[in-house]
Amino acid sequence: MKLLNETLLKIEGLNLEIKEKARQRIDLLVKPQGSLGKLEEIAEQLSGITGELYPEIKGKSVIVMCADHGVCDEGVAAAPQAVTAIQTMNFAKGVTGVCALAKQADADIRIIDIGIASDISDKNITHKKVKYGTDNISKGAAMTREEAVKSLEIGIEIAIEEIQKGNNLIATGEMGIGNTTPSSAIVSVLGNVLPKEVTGVGANLPEEKLGDKIEIINRSIAINKPDPQDAIDVLRKVGGLEIGGMAGVMLAGAAYRVPIVVDGFISTAAALIACSIEPKVKDFLIPSHSSREKGARFASKLLGFEPMINMNMRLGEGTGAVLAFNIIEAATFMNKEMITFTESGIEVV
Amino acid sequence: MKLLNETLLKIEGLNLEIKEKARQRIDLLVKPQGSLGKLEEIAEQLSGITGELYPEIKGKSVIVMCADHGVCDEGVAAAPQAVTAIQTMNFAKGVTGVCALAKQADADIRIIDIGIASDISDKNITHKKVKYGTDNISKGAAMTREEAVKSLEIGIEIAIEEIQKGNNLIATGEMGIGNTTPSSAIVSVLGNVLPKEVTGVGANLPEEKLGDKIEIINRSIAINKPDPQDAIDVLRKVGGLEIGGMAGVMLAGAAYRVPIVVDGFISTAAALIACSIEPKVKDFLIPSHSSREKGARFASKLLGFEPMINMNMRLGEGTGAVLAFNIIEAATFMNKEMITFTESGIEVV
Repeated sequence: MKLLNETLLKIEGLNLEIKEKARQRIDLLVKPQGSLGKLEEIAEQLSGITGELYPEIKGKSVIVMCADHGVCDEGVAAAPQAVTAIQTMNFAKGVTGVCALAKQADADIRIIDIGIASDISDKNITHKKVKYGTDNISKGAAMTREEAVKSLEIGIEIAIEEIQKGNNLIATGEMGIGNTTPSSAIVSVLGNVLPKEVTGVGANLPEEKLGDKIEIINRSIAINKPDPQDAIDVLRKVGGLEIGGMAGVMLAGAAYRVPIVVDGFISTAAALIACSIEPKVKDFLIPSHSSREKGARFASKLLGFEPMINMNMRLGEGTGAVLAFNIIEAATFMNKEMITFTESGIEVV
Repeated sequence: MKLLNETLLKIEGLNLEIKEKARQRIDLLVKPQGSLGKLEEIAEQLSGITGELYPEIKGKSVIVMCADHGVCDEGVAAAPQAVTAIQTMNFAKGVTGVCALAKQADADIRIIDIGIASDISDKNITHKKVKYGTDNISKGAAMTREEAVKSLEIGIEIAIEEIQKGNNLIATGEMGIGNTTPSSAIVSVLGNVLPKEVTGVGANLPEEKLGDKIEIINRSIAINKPDPQDAIDVLRKVGGLEIGGMAGVMLAGAAYRVPIVVDGFISTAAALIACSIEPKVKDFLIPSHSSREKGARFASKLLGFEPMINMNMRLGEGTGAVLAFNIIEAATFMNKEMITFTESGIEVV
């Protein structure tokens, strides 16, 4: 609880003075005003976060939080639970989707076992297991409040390590068979909307099982009665350990003034938790892609996210966020490499 | 005419056998089938284009075609015509939007004077002036048929040079004050739609002048009577030299089997010309971003384009296409770096 509280105390808003100065200069660059759209907004945001007029991306990192979900017992996922562990080992070997994209983007990968249901071991995996998977949320709370706080603090800790390494653009990713179920539950509770409005087939659950999945989420919320005013209660009762971990990364980003790139549905559910704990966190988040998963659109809307990439992706792992790394870096190049109309000899009318 | 005809004769469709093999392997990779969405489609397309199961991006280049438009006399643009020349010099100095983004993407830039209204000179500019700007399309044809063919052939020639250098991912970009006017005219004629449906404010034309701009386009089409069955006639009568140049780049891409990344509105109008000349070209084009300019959406729909980036950009120059370079390269990394379920020890159910 100490690390969480310390982190929350560090969070201040954007540096609005530098953000405004950045805006003013961007408006003078050799292009019609506003014509680089969201690239300009990202550049401004980066200035507001870092307090620098010409922020630079010094290093990129994607933090992949891996954990299991007791609710898998209810048949909410197409793949068997063991795939979480196997796929986490595949991250360690560098052969999954996010590994491939991170290699292209020249980004580090941190792989965290924050709650896989079995023991795995690899030098590339950071072992921070809070427990062997959450408990089945359709029968009771996913975890204790202490465990929920622990998951947030692990996220904070790992983010601080990445920042200390020199990485100043960090993405959240995850692996956890069944984790669209707690994500839909979180969005439903914090967004005050029925589960059926924010529940999809996740990783290829057969369409005919969708009704059962929605029913499980209805039951999980009914039995646990998570308090929408208390995001840690929501995380504890219907959440997941990797979701807590990612929310922790976001809190640390806001505290240490490093932009956090949010991936798809599960990451956006984590963002809802983080922003409910501390609304100022939102200004430190950069949405990346529109996930094809149903609840993602709703969750994005709640946060005012307008993702820049639209590729019908729904893999998770951080793949969409990593694809956005180069675009975000491009915003810093716009800032640094372009000259103003005056510098170029064009008179502005 | 010889180079154009030779190029057209070289164009064959995609290699469907390799494309299908690529599809089959992508379906076996360690991810739910289809979960990388458009990234998978791009990987397939690249295999179909190159005939390679594991295509690699060896070098990237953005070709920026620069030219002027006689129709500027009618007040269709907010900026004075001289800005085309000044901004082209800025490309040569490396200080514009596309230069900044190309630097981030590690891409070459080719800057072509294909028809600027004044003489400019710089070692970084390739001088291929067909004429000193097009004639005013609201009073007659933009150029002769020979000049239109010449503009296509310059595009082909430059693309071949870039390919011979080892660049195998090429983007089209442009600079030409006033060029949303011929672009809207082209989309209107080839899309069989009224100019008002596909005409916007371009580079910040005051909203109250939009009606005049539409009227100029109506008049240009009425006076020239371009034949929608003959794309070169359309290019000649209501087009532009940089539009012809970009269409030529696309024809060469299809002939020499190199993917061409299409930027925003002006590039998409050029794609309409290229695909009207030879429909097979479409399979060699990769759309990049959704331009905020009104006609872009319509033109994209005509071509079946679903751009992957949505950032409210409308600068042109090739900026949106260059932002897509890294994403397209990421598709090749997916292909090369990810392993299959069988290779990873997961049994596919």
